[in-house]
Amino acid sequence: MQSEQRTGVWIFGALGSIATHVLAGTAAIRRGLAPRRGLVTDMAPLTTLDLPGLDNLVFGGHELRPDTDPLGAAREIASRRGGLTRELVDAVEPELIAVAADLRPGCRAGLGAWAASLGVDSPGDADPVAETARMRADILEFRARHGLDRVVAVNLASTEPVSAALLGSQATGWDSFLAAHGPDIPASVLFSAAALQAGCALVNFTPSPALDLAPIRALALAQGLPICGKDGKTGETLLKSVLGPMFFARNLRVLSWESFNLLGNRDGQVLAHEGNKKSKLAGKSDLLRNVFDYPFHGEVHIDYVPSLDDWKTAWNLIHFEGFLGTRMMLQFTWQGCDSALAAPLVLDLVRLADLALRRGESGPMLHTAAFFKAPLGQVPVDLAGQMALLAEYAKTA
Amino acid sequence: MQSEQRTGVWIFGALGSIATHVLAGTAAIRRGLAPRRGLVTDMAPLTTLDLPGLDNLVFGGHELRPDTDPLGAAREIASRRGGLTRELVDAVEPELIAVAADLRPGCRAGLGAWAASLGVDSPGDADPVAETARMRADILEFRARHGLDRVVAVNLASTEPVSAALLGSQATGWDSFLAAHGPDIPASVLFSAAALQAGCALVNFTPSPALDLAPIRALALAQGLPICGKDGKTGETLLKSVLGPMFFARNLRVLSWESFNLLGNRDGQVLAHEGNKKSKLAGKSDLLRNVFDYPFHGEVHIDYVPSLDDWKTAWNLIHFEGFLGTRMMLQFTWQGCDSALAAPLVLDLVRLADLALRRGESGPMLHTAAFFKAPLGQVPVDLAGQMALLAEYAKTA
Amino acid sequence: MQSEQRTGVWIFGALGSIATHVLAGTAAIRRGLAPRRGLVTDMAPLTTLDLPGLDNLVFGGHELRPDTDPLGAAREIASRRGGLTRELVDAVEPELIAVAADLRPGCRAGLGAWAASLGVDSPGDADPVAETARMRADILEFRARHGLDRVVAVNLASTEPVSAALLGSQATGWDSFLAAHGPDIPASVLFSAAALQAGCALVNFTPSPALDLAPIRALALAQGLPICGKDGKTGETLLKSVLGPMFFARNLRVLSWESFNLLGNRDGQVLAHEGNKKSKLAGKSDLLRNVFDYPFHGEVHIDYVPSLDDWKTAWNLIHFEGFLGTRMMLQFTWQGCDSALAAPLVLDLVRLADLALRRGESGPMLHTAAFFKAPLGQVPVDLAGQMALLAEYAKTA
Amino acid sequence: MQSEQRTGVWIFGALGSIATHVLAGTAAIRRGLAPRRGLVTDMAPLTTLDLPGLDNLVFGGHELRPDTDPLGAAREIASRRGGLTRELVDAVEPELIAVAADLRPGCRAGLGAWAASLGVDSPGDADPVAETARMRADILEFRARHGLDRVVAVNLASTEPVSAALLGSQATGWDSFLAAHGPDIPASVLFSAAALQAGCALVNFTPSPALDLAPIRALALAQGLPICGKDGKTGETLLKSVLGPMFFARNLRVLSWESFNLLGNRDGQVLAHEGNKKSKLAGKSDLLRNVFDYPFHGEVHIDYVPSLDDWKTAWNLIHFEGFLGTRMMLQFTWQGCDSALAAPLVLDLVRLADLALRRGESGPMLHTAAFFKAPLGQVPVDLAGQMALLAEYAKTA
Repeated sequence: MQSEQRTGVWIFGALGSIATHVLAGTAAIRRGLAPRRGLVTDMAPLTTLDLPGLDNLVFGGHELRPDTDPLGAAREIASRRGGLTRELVDAVEPELIAVAADLRPGCRAGLGAWAASLGVDSPGDADPVAETARMRADILEFRARHGLDRVVAVNLASTEPVSAALLGSQATGWDSFLAAHGPDIPASVLFSAAALQAGCALVNFTPSPALDLAPIRALALAQGLPICGKDGKTGETLLKSVLGPMFFARNLRVLSWESFNLLGNRDGQVLAHEGNKKSKLAGKSDLLRNVFDYPFHGEVHIDYVPSLDDWKTAWNLIHFEGFLGTRMMLQFTWQGCDSALAAPLVLDLVRLADLALRRGESGPMLHTAAFFKAPLGQVPVDLAGQMALLAEYAKTA
Repeated sequence: MQSEQRTGVWIFGALGSIATHVLAGTAAIRRGLAPRRGLVTDMAPLTTLDLPGLDNLVFGGHELRPDTDPLGAAREIASRRGGLTRELVDAVEPELIAVAADLRPGCRAGLGAWAASLGVDSPGDADPVAETARMRADILEFRARHGLDRVVAVNLASTEPVSAALLGSQATGWDSFLAAHGPDIPASVLFSAAALQAGCALVNFTPSPALDLAPIRALALAQGLPICGKDGKTGETLLKSVLGPMFFARNLRVLSWESFNLLGNRDGQVLAHEGNKKSKLAGKSDLLRNVFDYPFHGEVHIDYVPSLDDWKTAWNLIHFEGFLGTRMMLQFTWQGCDSALAAPLVLDLVRLADLALRRGESGPMLHTAAFFKAPLGQVPVDLAGQMALLAEYAKTA
Repeated sequence: MQSEQRTGVWIFGALGSIATHVLAGTAAIRRGLAPRRGLVTDMAPLTTLDLPGLDNLVFGGHELRPDTDPLGAAREIASRRGGLTRELVDAVEPELIAVAADLRPGCRAGLGAWAASLGVDSPGDADPVAETARMRADILEFRARHGLDRVVAVNLASTEPVSAALLGSQATGWDSFLAAHGPDIPASVLFSAAALQAGCALVNFTPSPALDLAPIRALALAQGLPICGKDGKTGETLLKSVLGPMFFARNLRVLSWESFNLLGNRDGQVLAHEGNKKSKLAGKSDLLRNVFDYPFHGEVHIDYVPSLDDWKTAWNLIHFEGFLGTRMMLQFTWQGCDSALAAPLVLDLVRLADLALRRGESGPMLHTAAFFKAPLGQVPVDLAGQMALLAEYAKTA
Repeated sequence: MQSEQRTGVWIFGALGSIATHVLAGTAAIRRGLAPRRGLVTDMAPLTTLDLPGLDNLVFGGHELRPDTDPLGAAREIASRRGGLTRELVDAVEPELIAVAADLRPGCRAGLGAWAASLGVDSPGDADPVAETARMRADILEFRARHGLDRVVAVNLASTEPVSAALLGSQATGWDSFLAAHGPDIPASVLFSAAALQAGCALVNFTPSPALDLAPIRALALAQGLPICGKDGKTGETLLKSVLGPMFFARNLRVLSWESFNLLGNRDGQVLAHEGNKKSKLAGKSDLLRNVFDYPFHGEVHIDYVPSLDDWKTAWNLIHFEGFLGTRMMLQFTWQGCDSALAAPLVLDLVRLADLALRRGESGPMLHTAAFFKAPLGQVPVDLAGQMALLAEYAKTA
């Protein structure tokens, strides 16, 4: 019986919008103040798995911005009418204050031109070797302090620019990779190495390429640790993963699938920088390219519209051809609170990663494909096929 | 090898918009004038099945409106900018003229107040027994005249009002049913009996309750004939069959799902009559009720907007609740040419029914669930689950 | 200089959603806690008029539901995420508590089948003569108690069912009208009479037919009092009043203009009753009929969708014909908080009505046409033309 | 009585999509084959003006692409389901063939990198002085050949890149301008000079900066000729010119107004080039900047989506703040056939320019402001105010 056990959740980007929804939301659910919606692990057949309860989770993490605290972050979200109300934030004030003791400085390595817009110092003096060691020590100390059975590390930080050199690196081991590319390695990759070295399961909810890199994959296998990612599938891409297969199944030929994403949160602000945007867009457009076996016109646009805050508004236009070439159209507008969509999926992945860790499962968690825009491994591209993997896994309970 | 064989396709409602798209479209594809889009049976893994080619189909049918001919019907569609262009209609003029010889008068039984709006005589003097016999003879004569191997009967006629008494009938045999409810039995039911008595496979692409009635089901079983229906899933409901399961899988609680369908073709005109609309709406709203295991607000509206002609425009508003009760929204607008969406599915079903008939499969064709709003039998409600049934069937090739 | 003067605002339906936004919003603006948006009278050229400041208004009114108080009503709106936040409501708690002393029981006359749904007693025993006298006394007592210079009466109550007999009445004087139709006269009409008898200017922000009735018009003229109405133009109809004239000016022929209004507040609940809905819809569709000098298909639908609360979501489809008969389309979706749209217009009308009262202007306030769906008098139907009337009036400052 | 007179219409870009709609549409209307929709000059009060009839117009023009003819251009539009049907094109074949005799080669000066995509030779050898003289001669010869009373020149060519040096030029006379900037002057400016030198009234329906240039304005005044432009207001911007003023009049503060324009015709293809796009976007966003006297977020995007052809699909998201800062939203989707929207406005402008020419009116035709995105002169920014100018002008009849 695992319910006596306690699992640490170490978040990279611990005071971002998603993380703050996770922290405040978990506390609110524990107190019975809010409905427990959006958790896939609450649904059959996953309920038969011996997953940790939300009561068994202990939170900590790294955060870049020094002037932020969990309570302040939550209040700011409430004031901007995000997924947290002021009443709820007030009710979980003790938990939000308490978690501050488990936060440690983030990593400034690999920050692009947007460092300034985050209000942090230039990363010029960040030493990748020292930073990795420091983060590893932070996690181990967290684990020891709380006497945790296991720790799941979760990357929820902002999208970083990616250097092509890094992706094309021939280095297969972590140390040679570090030696070859040290100053170019973005923080999320250093963090991933640190987390694996500290024995954590690793969830990459962001577009960070960490899990695509051979040295990181090698580290996970060497340590026998489960990993999953990348880029949480929360809104528009979720829709694409059911609508794309629908058009394909019906032999309705998509001529153009134009996607426009408008958002105004820090994620949007960071994406206003071209380099960061490129990392993000790759995942978003790959999905449809994998659904259809023919070329079509399909641009994915992301625009920063400050007034929308965390309320992502996505408009898609799908122009398609049916019988005899008749041209028809589907449009949709998705208005979702990005962090409120992401937070329960993060909790789902933490629960599943904890189980995998406990079971000693190593490498890519293929059964989590449904949660990601660009899942690891050879997995189906449609949501239904991905959910079938999860159901199959549940049978192993 | 079946390719030498010839299959009859006998259409009830042979000059309606869907039927006309089927007739003109098949001819155009045979001549290589139009892309063969929208046929599900053209897609893997169904391509391994020994299905009849479009070249092997011979068309005929019943039609209510005496003043119509196939060429005129097709030209009218082209002039209203439906799914047929004038160039295409001109190119298949010979085929459209030829099929006229295989048309027979429709059946006026059970016509409601909308008989007048169809421009047909009042149904007062239609004798159900004689009408059934006459239709059976029409089909047998068609089969003999062309030396056909098999005939698939397809109901494509307008939605009829349904009497509750009929649906609640205790009669299990056709003759006793006919005796008990004769004058109340709508034409589509008489036609279904006639088709089965004539040894046809039966495809009910409309909301007609024919296949829900015990006497019709009994006839199919007694004759050892395959049947499938009801109500082709062409547009809005197709979307619901992927979007509903998506919300459910993500544990996003739907609060309201409001559906507005605007259309201006004869189907829309007929649906402007309350009785007919009720028959149609039942199927449309049942689907979501079966997806979600909790109550939600969900009205389905159909409105007749003449200027839209065959271009169904459907707007849906989905209001849902995520993490901590955060309320979010999805809207979509579907702009589809109803008949151009339906026609290839009709051809798919004809091909599949022909194969079932040849193989001697009897009763509900469960593998066709993906084609219908309200499929026969205990089948999954989501499109992916329904497509899996079809894929499973394809393995029997 | 009028700034020393004090004007009473007597609201019929004083604890409804609009009224609560007016009460809490005015208090918040006075305290400098909220931006002063949405007031037309804050814009040039109206700023030259000697209008009362928000500081000079004193509120009171009639309310039907006995179990409600202003603070509770405001908190309920905040909890449903309407146009008031909990922080704002907390900040103006003293004002909301204070206004309770100036509330008096509403009038139950003419309540239809929806009385029960409002949680009030059946109206069976309401005597129209006594009720009118009682309401008049309530207003006069309010005026005396606060030593007010003038009182503007505002109808913000729910839409009532209208009897055709009433609209077709031959009675021209109030007493004969009361004698002939007493028990059929809805509360809003009795209130209107009471307010005029008490010397108030009268603003009818609802679809109530009060100002269309000869006896009420006669009362206003006899008393020399300004009146305006009916039915505040807050959202979809506002859009129609600019988009309709745009299509007309461009000689683009509207074929169909379909309107779908979804809302979930008490207004929506009341409109779920057919009789009440009919009153409302009349005003909504008349506007476009007056813009175009040719027939078109144009249904206006109102549906009650509880989860939307006060957030009116309106979808319109406009199908139109341009050069050579080419058919094109415009769709819009309006997502507005009805009460937050209405409240500033109510304050505008109170300010304008107060000025008219002070100036001794009598009868229909033609310059307020821009504020109403169905304005009094012979006025332009387009917003621009109506705004020109207001600008013209401003020159009289 | 002017009806005996004949007016030449000389089009720059004579085989583009708009021009082809003008040519074929005018012929179809003359033959009574198509409804005369979309002409503003057909509406009161303009009907009192002594405007030329469509029967009195004679067409000719310059065209860049050598491999095109009017009939072929029209057939291509019909085949792509633009605003012309094949039936209509067939019916006016004689007129389309006849006009070919009045076409002359276009001008390759100032063509940017997109010259290749138009299938024309590089512009390297185009001499601006010679080209201007040649075009002037073409027009004069056209006038003489047909014995025309007057000629109206209309620029309907694709958007060109604009050099900042040109716009900032200090040259005030045409000759010094030509001397200073010769090789940088785009074709539309050379054409404008040629047309004015030939005594034509000049309508600039494109974003070309010709009429913003002092030397061109000086030419018009020196010759005493009427001019109007720029950039026809056909769709999205038309909506903005009524919706923007609506929000402003209501004191609803626009936070963000995001515009997405998708189109697939040659115009869209040309706009895919950054330089050309910049010229276009300037006009589109200026309008709203002039409506609101405060800053807001408002990006205008144009994307080339080939499958849409001439069917411009524009989605706008308007996020605004009302009473107490409550945030609300309007979205619209405009689906218009760009050329079918533009063509009748071109005919309107030709008619109005011909009248101005006949009357000897010189300089900017301020009364045509309603037709343009960026009208000349100090004119109102709202459509209603612009239509009032036109109505005022009509009184001079």
